[in-house]
Amino acid sequence: MKTAGHVYWLFGLSGAGKSTLAEALRRDFENHAGRAVLMLDGDRLRGGLCRGLGFSDLDRAENLRRAAEVARLGVESGLLVIAAFITPLEANRKAVVATVGAGQISLIHVDASLRACRERDVKGLYAGGAVGGAAQMTGLGSAFEAPAEFLCQISTDGETPEASSARLWRYVSGTQKVA
Amino acid sequence: MKTAGHVYWLFGLSGAGKSTLAEALRRDFENHAGRAVLMLDGDRLRGGLCRGLGFSDLDRAENLRRAAEVARLGVESGLLVIAAFITPLEANRKAVVATVGAGQISLIHVDASLRACRERDVKGLYAGGAVGGAAQMTGLGSAFEAPAEFLCQISTDGETPEASSARLWRYVSGTQKVA
Repeated sequence: MKTAGHVYWLFGLSGAGKSTLAEALRRDFENHAGRAVLMLDGDRLRGGLCRGLGFSDLDRAENLRRAAEVARLGVESGLLVIAAFITPLEANRKAVVATVGAGQISLIHVDASLRACRERDVKGLYAGGAVGGAAQMTGLGSAFEAPAEFLCQISTDGETPEASSARLWRYVSGTQKVA
Repeated sequence: MKTAGHVYWLFGLSGAGKSTLAEALRRDFENHAGRAVLMLDGDRLRGGLCRGLGFSDLDRAENLRRAAEVARLGVESGLLVIAAFITPLEANRKAVVATVGAGQISLIHVDASLRACRERDVKGLYAGGAVGGAAQMTGLGSAFEAPAEFLCQISTDGETPEASSARLWRYVSGTQKVA
């Protein structure tokens, strides 16, 4: 009866739609596969598990290391895990995959142009409210590296959240056993 | 369809039977309630999420803080969580309850005499293999405070694991909605 665990790791700029897609994916897993899901995201972790960590490269790496370790605990317990983190650098993404285990994680690039993200700016971060200021805001003073390898990419520019999430679910349910 | 999350936090001396009871409880939840469970324990966390932390009071508190934060993430995702940590001090236990939220955690004291724990010594820790040596081994150089408040207590001295785990399941299934 024990079911296989797997991590769906959504990454991309702030405002690209990671949290919205993560929540839609959670609902899809619940409704279509009856699976409970462990949800992880940057805001949630920074308020608790990663309290005290800042936005330097080193602190970001530690933040992601802890997130990946928690995801691994979920997989070891046979759970589905949905994680939503900017995960700006290729090195960050490689470290996450190494921690969880290559066969047990799907990286999903939630892609939107910086312009679209700034226009949405749901959290008011681009407008200057970010911890650390613009200098440490990914896409402004801090780099976001486009993914080098082929992987699932959901572009959310000029598309409704419903259309994006339906596309994500088709990808997920087509490539992974979900029930 | 979202089901309520809850944490079962087993604490007690090394060798008291926490891991054995945790695994039995996980199976009971799976078999009787069809619920997936997030499993957390000291060894697992020290090898990953809490790598680098030692056994001083401060490091132990940080170790438990992270464990409790992960348990809270599980509860927020509607999951059952079973945690097994020595959690030696009343202050540790209070901090854990405060982090998870009083209504969402059940503390369970897995109790055995120090003599029984030393005789079992499954991990060879009492014999001197513990990180930090005997000086930081709970029950030897480092204190274990008996719980002050009334709560569930499973005494494993002179009892088979099967009998103890059956007793734990009667307690858990009687006081908590599990399905």
